[in-house]
Amino acid sequence: MADAPLTPDRILEAAEDALRRFGPAKANVVDVARALNVSHGSVYRHFPSKAALRGAVAERWLARLAEPLAEIAAERGPAQPRLRRWLDALCDAKQSRARDEPELFTTYYQLALEADEVVRAHVNALAVQLGEIIADGVGRGDFTVADPFRTGRAVFDATSRFHNPAHLAEWNDPEIKTDFEGVWLLILSGLGVPR
Amino acid sequence: MADAPLTPDRILEAAEDALRRFGPAKANVVDVARALNVSHGSVYRHFPSKAALRGAVAERWLARLAEPLAEIAAERGPAQPRLRRWLDALCDAKQSRARDEPELFTTYYQLALEADEVVRAHVNALAVQLGEIIADGVGRGDFTVADPFRTGRAVFDATSRFHNPAHLAEWNDPEIKTDFEGVWLLILSGLGVPR
Repeated sequence: MADAPLTPDRILEAAEDALRRFGPAKANVVDVARALNVSHGSVYRHFPSKAALRGAVAERWLARLAEPLAEIAAERGPAQPRLRRWLDALCDAKQSRARDEPELFTTYYQLALEADEVVRAHVNALAVQLGEIIADGVGRGDFTVADPFRTGRAVFDATSRFHNPAHLAEWNDPEIKTDFEGVWLLILSGLGVPR
Repeated sequence: MADAPLTPDRILEAAEDALRRFGPAKANVVDVARALNVSHGSVYRHFPSKAALRGAVAERWLARLAEPLAEIAAERGPAQPRLRRWLDALCDAKQSRARDEPELFTTYYQLALEADEVVRAHVNALAVQLGEIIADGVGRGDFTVADPFRTGRAVFDATSRFHNPAHLAEWNDPEIKTDFEGVWLLILSGLGVPR
């Protein structure tokens, strides 16, 4: 292991492992270096600061969460069920992880809160995917919307309660699915889908 | 002061004062009793537990925030500008207090997080007010919506990012107003207002 080249990926894996074991408050670069059997200077050659390393871990987590979404956005066929699948996949990726691995979820969420720019890029990329689905839906005659990309952002924002971990405590609410259906109907109507 | 009758209101004022001075982690019933020059048993006669007292403080805070909203909901006239005034008033009540008195806002928010039932009742009351505005709008021919009260709840949820203190950290984002306008346009369209 110690002889394998020290790549950013290996460092990130060791960092995730340290975070799982010690939690976000205690895990540090020394733990990561020790696990990799390298000096902490070697880690800093790849990530110039602890904040940069934590930001990169948050970025990888968000990328994993978002992976299935880009595929759904790129599918073809009727836009309405695709939009729904995309939103379900996003909400489920967040809610199921929060339920199944609450400590780990909170750890990653804490890291994301510290990494403004990383989160902003993630949110923008997702809003653009929504814009693409909506633009495609307008082209197919499924939706009637003046500005698909602005609407994509609005759909992302309007569904925050169901995918933004700031609302973690509400995800156990027995009404959460009913509430989502209400917002979904409002969005469909907002996209010009006849009632 | 010590001779004035010990009313729930006087206890709540003393409790708010103690919270301002000592913060939510440290303020306790003994501080409240001392400020009122009564025994803590006297306080417990009105509020059976520290949690009940803190919940009542949260309830009063939410009631103050919501006060202007019921008036707007009860106004007459075109429903679209009324709906907008109502949403603006809610978002402004939260965002301006968070900006102007950040510590106090965080204190009250912390109390609200501990008082599930109080928050649920507050949210339900606000969603009903939205439902009333929308129902009135349907009656006036301003909106076209199948179920005004379900839609009211959906409008409340869809605007969470702009009024739920869970999103406090995002309220300084320079794009927050632009994002709100995007969601507002989506909602109007969802209410059947022609573009």
